[in-house]
Amino acid sequence: MSGTPDAESPAPRTSPPIIAVDAMGGDNAPGEIVRGAVTAVRELGLRVLLVGRRTEIAAMLAEEGALRDIPVVHAEDSIAMDEGALASWRRPRSSAAVACRLIRRGDADALVSAGSTGGIVATSTVRLRTRPGVLRPALAVTLPTLPTPTILVDAGANADAKPEMLVQFAHLGCAYAQTAFGVENPRVGVLTIGSEPGKGNKLIRRTVELLAEVPEMDFQGNVEGHDLLTGKVDVVVTDGHTGNVALKTVEGTAGFTLNAMKEAITSSTIAKAGAVLQRGALRRLRERFDSETYGGAALLGLNGTVVIAHGDSHHTSIAHACRLAHDLAGGRMEERIRRRVPHRSPVWLHRRSQDER
Amino acid sequence: MSGTPDAESPAPRTSPPIIAVDAMGGDNAPGEIVRGAVTAVRELGLRVLLVGRRTEIAAMLAEEGALRDIPVVHAEDSIAMDEGALASWRRPRSSAAVACRLIRRGDADALVSAGSTGGIVATSTVRLRTRPGVLRPALAVTLPTLPTPTILVDAGANADAKPEMLVQFAHLGCAYAQTAFGVENPRVGVLTIGSEPGKGNKLIRRTVELLAEVPEMDFQGNVEGHDLLTGKVDVVVTDGHTGNVALKTVEGTAGFTLNAMKEAITSSTIAKAGAVLQRGALRRLRERFDSETYGGAALLGLNGTVVIAHGDSHHTSIAHACRLAHDLAGGRMEERIRRRVPHRSPVWLHRRSQDER
Repeated sequence: MSGTPDAESPAPRTSPPIIAVDAMGGDNAPGEIVRGAVTAVRELGLRVLLVGRRTEIAAMLAEEGALRDIPVVHAEDSIAMDEGALASWRRPRSSAAVACRLIRRGDADALVSAGSTGGIVATSTVRLRTRPGVLRPALAVTLPTLPTPTILVDAGANADAKPEMLVQFAHLGCAYAQTAFGVENPRVGVLTIGSEPGKGNKLIRRTVELLAEVPEMDFQGNVEGHDLLTGKVDVVVTDGHTGNVALKTVEGTAGFTLNAMKEAITSSTIAKAGAVLQRGALRRLRERFDSETYGGAALLGLNGTVVIAHGDSHHTSIAHACRLAHDLAGGRMEERIRRRVPHRSPVWLHRRSQDER
Repeated sequence: MSGTPDAESPAPRTSPPIIAVDAMGGDNAPGEIVRGAVTAVRELGLRVLLVGRRTEIAAMLAEEGALRDIPVVHAEDSIAMDEGALASWRRPRSSAAVACRLIRRGDADALVSAGSTGGIVATSTVRLRTRPGVLRPALAVTLPTLPTPTILVDAGANADAKPEMLVQFAHLGCAYAQTAFGVENPRVGVLTIGSEPGKGNKLIRRTVELLAEVPEMDFQGNVEGHDLLTGKVDVVVTDGHTGNVALKTVEGTAGFTLNAMKEAITSSTIAKAGAVLQRGALRRLRERFDSETYGGAALLGLNGTVVIAHGDSHHTSIAHACRLAHDLAGGRMEERIRRRVPHRSPVWLHRRSQDER
């Protein structure tokens, strides 16, 4: 293996990163994905290639007049939206697996997919492996706080986690906040059930002890569910079970409230008249909560950048996901993780060796 | 001990239950609490007594002209709002502890307190003990779904739980839904990170296996964070860590969205003109999300009814909490739990013996 993840100080990147877009992943694949890739190239000026069934994709690109702008790499298979983690073994020639191969060979720097989260997490974990010292990859999502988004990590990659993993998730989240949002010294909080120290389950209590000992981290202690959208911290650390429940609860509650509000303000003729006057304001609010605006979840800690867009992504969302992948792959993410996470992990922890490949 | 929690079929209750209200618990104690008790008696026709510093409370009752309507039981001490579980040991003469003593003696049937959740959970658990066979008491809250509320249990009493406890939480939640909301055959779901079976952490996967074997339960399998407000199930089962995070996330997100919406619809003169037309509709929506409307969390599984109102409760909220306590204590809650939860718990589980008292 000739990759140099261990090199002391890698030469600064000179050319922009290449984003491998999984054309076959997502509810609206391949049509919206191909259009998203075209948008990413034309409007955002990114370097993109598409992976999937070549003839199908080429025909679409031809329609958009973009056949010369975006290379296509053929993959005969794909992961269905209802396939989970097992897909990584079952489908070695899926478009996602082929994209990972491109990254390992150095022919691409990042994968963007709107495929099933379980399938893409498993495929990219198996094929890209974790960076040296990283115990588990973690899914990081952004919450719509201002001025910069709050990062919730892990949002679902690890249902069962250990305190040492959560400490690493904090480091990964900090590297993300620094790279993607320019937050120099991210404030870190642990998601639990009370603001006082000592609150929470065993996992959280031990994690808080460990994080308090990390010297170069702005650790703010406990945060609670109602702090997620207040911007109290930049990085919220949690296990994948709690994080996924919290994320979906935010999405569900925001959607529920917006709909209830819409009903309420159009419930009478008088109120309806008021609603007409407010159309613009309400649309902007809904956009703020719309997942399309954020680009998707980043799977952190692998040898390569992976961004997982929402399954129902349309082309704008795919383009946003490409930009996020571009920012993470082109930034100093790799260097930051290397500095933060020691190369050796505790011996007692079972981990897939990243040196096997 | 002359209590008859084990009697085969208790005589149906003839007199309405007596609610012991902790006058000293809550941010607005004792003023709002005393006023809430008066409201409960006058407007809801409940039987209430107040526990706390006698002279102070009597003066307030005299002001309201209610000195003859509400008996006062003296308690010299009280649990401060920032005191947690240790308060149960530190303050044996707190108003909450005295109220529990009244329940054990048969002089009251239920405790209503707006005191610190940790302190009230610990005090009432230690002093009332769990019902025969119940491993741990669980905190049940209601979410504003229609036509009947969804019950989330456990919302924070047990940060670390075992699968067998979660199965009991399901039974306790069902008894609650039947007693308080008349849901005959409550649908039960387990809160986890994917809708497919096999998703979730070890605790949840084992709980799902166990619940699937319960014969008389309408078990619907997995539910996710975005299902909490859709009314997909009547009872959502979870451990106290995840449940508390989910509850606070619902509250935080609803509040955030309503505020953002308010700002959005008053952001311009035109939009503001619209907002004036909608005042009524928006207020009704906010009320629906307002915790004051629900009366508080019920601590289920103890020898006696315990309702914990929000710390910032005003008198209406206290009156609602009294009504909830009345419904639970006066209904067939006790009988339902006895039928659902076998008297013997697994031997391997450490539990505080409820026969000691």
